[in-house]
Amino acid sequence: MDIIFYCPDIRTNPQMPELESQHCARVLRMKEGDPLFITDGKGYFYHAHLLQANPKSCVVAIDEEIAQPKEWDYDLHIAFAPTKKLDRMEWFVEKATEIGIDAFAPFQCRYSERKNINASRLEKIMVSAMKQSQKSRLPQFDEMIKFKDFVKQPYSGQKFIAHCYDSAKSPLTHICKKSTDTLILIGPEGDFSEEEVAMAIENGFTAISLGESRLRTETAALVACHTVQLINQL
Amino acid sequence: MDIIFYCPDIRTNPQMPELESQHCARVLRMKEGDPLFITDGKGYFYHAHLLQANPKSCVVAIDEEIAQPKEWDYDLHIAFAPTKKLDRMEWFVEKATEIGIDAFAPFQCRYSERKNINASRLEKIMVSAMKQSQKSRLPQFDEMIKFKDFVKQPYSGQKFIAHCYDSAKSPLTHICKKSTDTLILIGPEGDFSEEEVAMAIENGFTAISLGESRLRTETAALVACHTVQLINQL
Repeated sequence: MDIIFYCPDIRTNPQMPELESQHCARVLRMKEGDPLFITDGKGYFYHAHLLQANPKSCVVAIDEEIAQPKEWDYDLHIAFAPTKKLDRMEWFVEKATEIGIDAFAPFQCRYSERKNINASRLEKIMVSAMKQSQKSRLPQFDEMIKFKDFVKQPYSGQKFIAHCYDSAKSPLTHICKKSTDTLILIGPEGDFSEEEVAMAIENGFTAISLGESRLRTETAALVACHTVQLINQL
Repeated sequence: MDIIFYCPDIRTNPQMPELESQHCARVLRMKEGDPLFITDGKGYFYHAHLLQANPKSCVVAIDEEIAQPKEWDYDLHIAFAPTKKLDRMEWFVEKATEIGIDAFAPFQCRYSERKNINASRLEKIMVSAMKQSQKSRLPQFDEMIKFKDFVKQPYSGQKFIAHCYDSAKSPLTHICKKSTDTLILIGPEGDFSEEEVAMAIENGFTAISLGESRLRTETAALVACHTVQLINQL
């Protein structure tokens, strides 16, 4: 497998970011003239070569640009209450990036057990998963906002909320439309409050179930992501 | 949510296992007469009450036995090469237990990066995930054997091998039959050897792909598990 370097600004700036420069010049000991394979995380791969090997800032020259068509024809957003244990959320972010997702949107709700996230650590996890799965698009990771503000934002696709109350719900497998932008809300360990569920439904969200099993927060988020991808592959 | 105690031998032995006794009598400080909710991991829940609270060995009396119909009408076995990093395999075992699986079968193959597993640690993870997802069946975890011996074992359902070579493969979503016992082989980080793929095909396995994305070993294993469960829900 080719090693992929992540250089988000490669089109306008021939310098690699410091972390990637370090990896290139110090860890892999690459030399001037060596070929490189780069992505900008925006849908492009680049064949390039090294002009200056410097562990602080390598300089590269692009030889060829390869546009990558997106593997799915809709936007998939998963919005979620970050888990109490960071590693559970990180697993979800890694696995969803491998499987395929467009945007993560963390929100704070009534029973949220975590009020803060480490954005730079999550970006590293996304970059690594993007490279690992040989993708050329880095998912978007939104700023955390309050649930009540989040559900009022406009969104022009199908909108779902997964909760654990006994009220009427449709299985996501049955109501998810193909080739349609999709936003799914996943609650915290203690679930959404009943008021929050009502607020989402008022704002056009449809209540869904994700199957018979009771799932942990991060498992529910990943199952939602994979279900949408799979329905679209059928 | 009710607290569920795991007592595999509760039908023949009224004593709780030590770890569960500790949790009951020391952590939760339950007293004689307190009601308990128990599973044997074999498809039954039990309403019971505590006869003796003892952190080494609680004694219980069963009040009612509730048979749980299995949530799916087939057997789902995932056989895999354990990952180099233990936590990645543990994550898969936890998530697959939550989503639903009948048996895990680790095997050793040519490019395996791990030759040993910690069975008691994995059992704890499965027990915890079973309780968490309110299931009454503990998946089976087989002894690790050599890949070449594994593929020769008889199995009377549909048999698939997921590999990364460019040879002919069918998407699992398209060829997986519903309500049919299913065995899926997932290779190590460095994939199966070409010889191993050939050996599996000789022994009646069909080569499959799990979608467009290149997935890590443990992600591929979980995606395979969830794909089978989802196909059966459609």
